[in-house]
Amino acid sequence: MALIVHKYGGTSMGSVERIKNVARRVAKWHAAGHQIVVVPSAMSGETNRLIGLAKEIQEQPDPRELDMIASTGEQVSVGLLAMALKSLGLDARSYTGWQVPVRTDASYTKARIASIDDARIRGDLDQGRVVIVAGFQGIDDDNNITTLGRGGSDTSAVAVAAALKASECLIYTDVDGVYTTDPRVVPEARRLRVVSFEEMLEMASLGSKILQIRSVEFAGKYRVPTRVLSSLTDPLMPLDEEMQSGTLITFEEDEKMESAVVSGIAFSRDEAKVTVLAVPDKPGIAYSILGPIAAANIDVDVIVQNQSVAGTTDFSFTVHRNEFQKTIDVLNRDVVTQVGAREVVADPKVAKVSIVGIGMRSHVGVASLMFKTLSEEGINIQMISTSEIKTSVIMDDKYMELAVRALHKAFGLDQTQA
Amino acid sequence: MALIVHKYGGTSMGSVERIKNVARRVAKWHAAGHQIVVVPSAMSGETNRLIGLAKEIQEQPDPRELDMIASTGEQVSVGLLAMALKSLGLDARSYTGWQVPVRTDASYTKARIASIDDARIRGDLDQGRVVIVAGFQGIDDDNNITTLGRGGSDTSAVAVAAALKASECLIYTDVDGVYTTDPRVVPEARRLRVVSFEEMLEMASLGSKILQIRSVEFAGKYRVPTRVLSSLTDPLMPLDEEMQSGTLITFEEDEKMESAVVSGIAFSRDEAKVTVLAVPDKPGIAYSILGPIAAANIDVDVIVQNQSVAGTTDFSFTVHRNEFQKTIDVLNRDVVTQVGAREVVADPKVAKVSIVGIGMRSHVGVASLMFKTLSEEGINIQMISTSEIKTSVIMDDKYMELAVRALHKAFGLDQTQA
Repeated sequence: MALIVHKYGGTSMGSVERIKNVARRVAKWHAAGHQIVVVPSAMSGETNRLIGLAKEIQEQPDPRELDMIASTGEQVSVGLLAMALKSLGLDARSYTGWQVPVRTDASYTKARIASIDDARIRGDLDQGRVVIVAGFQGIDDDNNITTLGRGGSDTSAVAVAAALKASECLIYTDVDGVYTTDPRVVPEARRLRVVSFEEMLEMASLGSKILQIRSVEFAGKYRVPTRVLSSLTDPLMPLDEEMQSGTLITFEEDEKMESAVVSGIAFSRDEAKVTVLAVPDKPGIAYSILGPIAAANIDVDVIVQNQSVAGTTDFSFTVHRNEFQKTIDVLNRDVVTQVGAREVVADPKVAKVSIVGIGMRSHVGVASLMFKTLSEEGINIQMISTSEIKTSVIMDDKYMELAVRALHKAFGLDQTQA
Repeated sequence: MALIVHKYGGTSMGSVERIKNVARRVAKWHAAGHQIVVVPSAMSGETNRLIGLAKEIQEQPDPRELDMIASTGEQVSVGLLAMALKSLGLDARSYTGWQVPVRTDASYTKARIASIDDARIRGDLDQGRVVIVAGFQGIDDDNNITTLGRGGSDTSAVAVAAALKASECLIYTDVDGVYTTDPRVVPEARRLRVVSFEEMLEMASLGSKILQIRSVEFAGKYRVPTRVLSSLTDPLMPLDEEMQSGTLITFEEDEKMESAVVSGIAFSRDEAKVTVLAVPDKPGIAYSILGPIAAANIDVDVIVQNQSVAGTTDFSFTVHRNEFQKTIDVLNRDVVTQVGAREVVADPKVAKVSIVGIGMRSHVGVASLMFKTLSEEGINIQMISTSEIKTSVIMDDKYMELAVRALHKAFGLDQTQA
């Protein structure tokens, strides 16, 4: 008997029929003798409906009141799922965030979990009940309702699993695992049976939307074995078969990790590049450029400062494409004249392509193979950024798919897994 | 400066535009220097939508989980109203039932309020905030969410007003007050400016749907001056004019009460009559007939037992028309042979017409005038039931409108108020 946390996304909870399927799957796990805690999201579309209502009332909705409203989607989900389980003859009980309670800081709409009280959940599990906990929500020290931000139910599930020291956290979603890259771009993309925590973290930060990045951080911090798998399979498929599906995020490097040096190719078209030309090269120049950008609440991604030539340098960075114009405005207003730069040039049509792999730590020449491959395809690299297990390049966005396909082949990801 | 509680029904909160109108009205009251607590219902249709979802999942929804779900409608309302007030520049703060907290017993779907903690509300009022409290909901001693049943937000509002010792509880609804009778039946029906608590209680129990009967009981128990008025008027109408509108429910008989003996005519077509014929007349007969009916959870309204003739009597009572068939089944299965009665005869097409008036206490001949009026119209009275301030008669339902109009005229209710 193991204690297992299931998380179901909005699509999996998207209709009465789907909720009944979730209940059938949970009942199967329970019947196998496991203790089950379920963390569902709001029914798909519901959170957007609620936020839309709020924005009709107040253009910039008050964050406390927005959380008051947005948290109701999950509250409805937990009640409906408890009913579906009861109609299958199981004893089930639902809880909101405050009833557990899930304590968070007071940052409305993007709160962070501080602690989870496991007493009430354990009491129910000990009585044979399935426990259903509303994802996405908690309360601050003054008992105000908070929410964790988009995708926050993933974080709720992993945090509940950590608090209960669960054997595994199963994240059921509308894809059947983590792939070497997006199968819509590269049909040969393969599902990874195992991926390391560090790789998953890089992929999440690079824009792969399978898991909220904070849930991956949580899984890593508390070493919660977490599996991504599909809720669209037959809910009554045999348990051992189900446990072979999906992708396991692991912390044990000696588990049978992928032998490949590179595990996956991530990419994003949401990038825009900005360059401040001929900046006088002196200490503090990065801060004098990026300080005003941060003050305007703009996230900066890749940053490159070239070697200085004749006492000036070119300073480039990328931002989300939605914040492109705002970035240029801030630079022209607050930066160019102050730092004595010549001008700002910008390109909103760039893409980022990244190779990710824990094997890169111990293998040399991985980045070289990436650059060689892109060069052979005639793709010009505009910027480069590296971490221990990732290399990202910025390029003209029209080359993005070509680059992803070429790299997927060059790193042997097309081949079926050994 | 007074502390005033406003309650807005589902129709008043039914759209973004209407919520903005509620905010304008509340802002006007606040600007006049009053402390305002608002108790809104869910947006119209929302509670039905949620219950419908639940019933798709589980035919007889689990009561605890149903309350978990149904309570979210009001939670969305309070958040939206707080936003609407904030966008008008007011400081406002919303609370769910559990945040106040509103403590209830553990009777899911029909809980009764046990206590309301006023500390948090007072703290906000003292800081100049408008406080918005979700109606219809509370928590039991184990922190499970409970709801108060249909129309429960009326009770929430009156209970909050009682806990805060508010000067007045204003119930804004889609009618502009309490009328001498339903204006759709009698066009000459007049709005009552003042009605006594006892009369209101009778009218609510007789099927007038303006206020939930428990809210009237609460108002009576704690002597909360309560006014029913329309939310469809211009939200910016002058305050003194607004305070002259609607109907005030009062506890002071020496206030300028209606001079009329009878204040209103209530009626209901939801009645069915059942008669058990030739029951041997001996002690305990009422219980042996009505015991099985109560055990089947059927509410009995008017009961008449005639004088015994030749050792047997006829025993008649009325039930809600929806429970007509169930009642006959129970009688034929569990009662007729056991008590030695001859048979059951029944009529599902009866109506109840009642005159209500606190003046009936001190005036003789009121019931006589009622019977004379009906007789002159050729209407046969099938059953009679009286209380201190009410006389109800059961008749063939085809005569109902005729009876109401004739009585409205006979008791002088057509005449404009002095």
